Amino acid sequence: MSQKKKSAGEKPDAVMEKLVSLSKRRGFVFQSSEIYGGLASCWDYGPLGVELKRNIKDAWWNAMTKHYDNIVGLDSAIMMNPRVWEASGHVDSFNDPMIDDKTSKRRYRADHLIEGYIASLEKKGKTEEAARVQGEYHKALATEPLVKSLYDLIIKEEIKAPDSGAFNWTEVRQFNLMFQAPLGAVADEASIVYLRPETAQGIFVNFQTVREAARMKVPFGIAQIGKAFRNEIVKGNFIFRMIEFEQMEMQYFVKPGTQMEAFEEWRERRMSWYTESLGISKEKLHWYKHDQLAHYADAAYDIKFEFPFGIEEIEGIHSRTDFDLRRHQEYSGKSMEYFDQESKERYLPYVVETSAGSDRLFLAVLSDAYTEDEIDGESRVSLNLHPNLAPIKAGLFPLMKKEGMPEIAQKLQKELQKQFKVQYDDAGSIGKRYRRQDEIGTPYCFTIDHDTLQDGTVTVRDRDTTEQSRIALDQVKAFLSEKLLK
Amino acid sequence: MSQKKKSAGEKPDAVMEKLVSLSKRRGFVFQSSEIYGGLASCWDYGPLGVELKRNIKDAWWNAMTKHYDNIVGLDSAIMMNPRVWEASGHVDSFNDPMIDDKTSKRRYRADHLIEGYIASLEKKGKTEEAARVQGEYHKALATEPLVKSLYDLIIKEEIKAPDSGAFNWTEVRQFNLMFQAPLGAVADEASIVYLRPETAQGIFVNFQTVREAARMKVPFGIAQIGKAFRNEIVKGNFIFRMIEFEQMEMQYFVKPGTQMEAFEEWRERRMSWYTESLGISKEKLHWYKHDQLAHYADAAYDIKFEFPFGIEEIEGIHSRTDFDLRRHQEYSGKSMEYFDQESKERYLPYVVETSAGSDRLFLAVLSDAYTEDEIDGESRVSLNLHPNLAPIKAGLFPLMKKEGMPEIAQKLQKELQKQFKVQYDDAGSIGKRYRRQDEIGTPYCFTIDHDTLQDGTVTVRDRDTTEQSRIALDQVKAFLSEKLLK
Repeated sequence: MSQKKKSAGEKPDAVMEKLVSLSKRRGFVFQSSEIYGGLASCWDYGPLGVELKRNIKDAWWNAMTKHYDNIVGLDSAIMMNPRVWEASGHVDSFNDPMIDDKTSKRRYRADHLIEGYIASLEKKGKTEEAARVQGEYHKALATEPLVKSLYDLIIKEEIKAPDSGAFNWTEVRQFNLMFQAPLGAVADEASIVYLRPETAQGIFVNFQTVREAARMKVPFGIAQIGKAFRNEIVKGNFIFRMIEFEQMEMQYFVKPGTQMEAFEEWRERRMSWYTESLGISKEKLHWYKHDQLAHYADAAYDIKFEFPFGIEEIEGIHSRTDFDLRRHQEYSGKSMEYFDQESKERYLPYVVETSAGSDRLFLAVLSDAYTEDEIDGESRVSLNLHPNLAPIKAGLFPLMKKEGMPEIAQKLQKELQKQFKVQYDDAGSIGKRYRRQDEIGTPYCFTIDHDTLQDGTVTVRDRDTTEQSRIALDQVKAFLSEKLLK
Repeated sequence: MSQKKKSAGEKPDAVMEKLVSLSKRRGFVFQSSEIYGGLASCWDYGPLGVELKRNIKDAWWNAMTKHYDNIVGLDSAIMMNPRVWEASGHVDSFNDPMIDDKTSKRRYRADHLIEGYIASLEKKGKTEEAARVQGEYHKALATEPLVKSLYDLIIKEEIKAPDSGAFNWTEVRQFNLMFQAPLGAVADEASIVYLRPETAQGIFVNFQTVREAARMKVPFGIAQIGKAFRNEIVKGNFIFRMIEFEQMEMQYFVKPGTQMEAFEEWRERRMSWYTESLGISKEKLHWYKHDQLAHYADAAYDIKFEFPFGIEEIEGIHSRTDFDLRRHQEYSGKSMEYFDQESKERYLPYVVETSAGSDRLFLAVLSDAYTEDEIDGESRVSLNLHPNLAPIKAGLFPLMKKEGMPEIAQKLQKELQKQFKVQYDDAGSIGKRYRRQDEIGTPYCFTIDHDTLQDGTVTVRDRDTTEQSRIALDQVKAFLSEKLLK
């Protein structure tokens, strides 16, 4: 019946436009404070978006804390003692090099400015010139201090401000990417609080309290879902990168020397979670190995997804050694060591981290599910979401607004909605109602029709195959339970 | 068997101390960044706390968005366009009067300072003097400008700083309670972003987009759970009041003139949610009617709960008229009106708000559930949590670490943990294991013993009655489903 015609050949911008438009029209994602012109790279999740996002987060939470005995959850506050960020290294080195256009008062990332200039040369066909500047740029990136080498290149190449066209720059300065707000409760002007730029540190500083309270033995993991904030300039791509975003992080504490085993195990577990629990197409997921490691890491892989705008990271799996616990031990003066009852050894555990972004994952799920096909000569848009992720689990349609059909459908709705999110729809033809549910990813639709009045059966229609069959009205709940609670 | 001996007669401080201590020991709530000395009035939810809090939030979310057809969810960003807070009135008037001790650099709320002084007079037995200052204080509160009347009273009564003992004050100034952080992406120093002090405004500014996308007709509601922040001085009481906290708000949009009907309906619905879905004792819940209404409200009630430290608000149900939509219409220039297809009328909807704090609710649930009783002559601490709220649904105990009992228990665990959060425990006597589960509110424990090997039955033990009975091993999952998925 249904002829797949995935939007594979289309231009990335066209696909993204369709996703953004569908998201707004059907209530997945809206621009934040849109009536006031928005706020740069901030987005709100609408009625369907919030359900999809909750389902993704629940899938992750269950896969971590319910499925594994030795992984427990945590929800630490966004605001922490500022010393945490000194210990983690964020106060000193979580920076971007920025430059201001004195004419327009606009601020740019110095590296983005140069990259944009090179791209514009290429666009104009000045290939040789572009290659020359690219070479200079690579040299500048390798030269310390970076703020000076980038500034010198901007001045030498006379790169103008993209918005004002002016050549009227400040120096390049390093700006810290942590949001910081003065604390009102303290008269001291210097007293500030940072908004956490990652959830991981909340896990590290609670290592001992969690371990003791939950009676955990190494190896064990602590999982957390929460907001993080980065005060940076963001280059579009919808919800892929935002100044306010949500992380799903799990830190797995292991005995030193066993970290590579745990690392490989978690690589495998995480990859299969994407295909099995989220139903993401295997061929759109890729491994990326970090060749240049952060100074504290001894292995690092990313899972990347083929977004319409390119192949980009959705999760990092990093072996972080004992860097984090060691730093917090140093800075706090509190022991972060673990005493192993079996081997009678005392050591600082090593950490294997799995760190995913739930907003990115939302976009990956949405763009993977987006499908255009043709049914009986008519084009159709559908979201082939994993049934467990679908915001609405079932559409309930009385064929007509008479003969008791609405009453039967409403009774069914009352029965189902204790357990499932369902939608009652009596507007327009059944075909139109199917399309509305297809477009938001509802896996099953049930129609109450004339036969229902006769034999107590309803039509159940499958989103993906568009096939219809009949089941008993009193079996609908069991049918959904069977399909969804696996 | 179990003799109830609720800790009713105890001193409030002693009860709170027990709750805080249990919370830390068993992993419900920890002080935030404790290894660095904490951060004032910030707390982290530990392994059991995060599960209890999730269960409370899920109960609210389901009661709103799953149960009612005409209520949809939203998850708007914490950071919004600053104009939102001009329109809402927060920039102008969301202030506290503060005064600094120039000697210690500590900052105080001027009203708290005076109240503390009055309390200290009473403590010293200077009842008459306390009454006189109380009278002066009431006069000052009614005198504008407040900053001057409060300052004058502090100076006149020669109130000293509680910490330094100094009498060396700055003027009283109004401090805005919104956290504000400079936006790095803009060179303009004046460009700041506020952390939202309430989630409600995210609902108001999205009124039209949500209504259109979800095809909603008035009356309908928008529900949201999310963090909010208030840059204020907080007077203790554990997680009751924090600078970072979580709200569960639902704004219900109605036709003007019908708001009192909706208001009464929601009062009833919300109160019964506390007793039926959360299982909170009816006698600890109280209505409080606001006699002094905010200028925009036409009716306001709070639901209060008997905490160990006093009867305090856990939810507000307020009829807000069209104040919020009207202000956003004015400030944004975008119409917030609704066209009623049936009556062919165009109007600005009125709003009935239900606003609860999930942290406060957590504390209410915890303190309501906390029970000390005696079983067979031994004292016991248990949390009589509603089974749907319990962090762990079942304890699984092999009686002995031999004869295949651990294997049977582990197999049962594997079967159950797809759906339920369960805990395997093989350490110590069965009695000790029961106590450990009682203390964290686990409603059911299953023991695999010698009889299991013979007849395939297990002992199921009920937390509240402490009664034991036997059921078939292969009926445990059905038993839990029956008890929990209602």
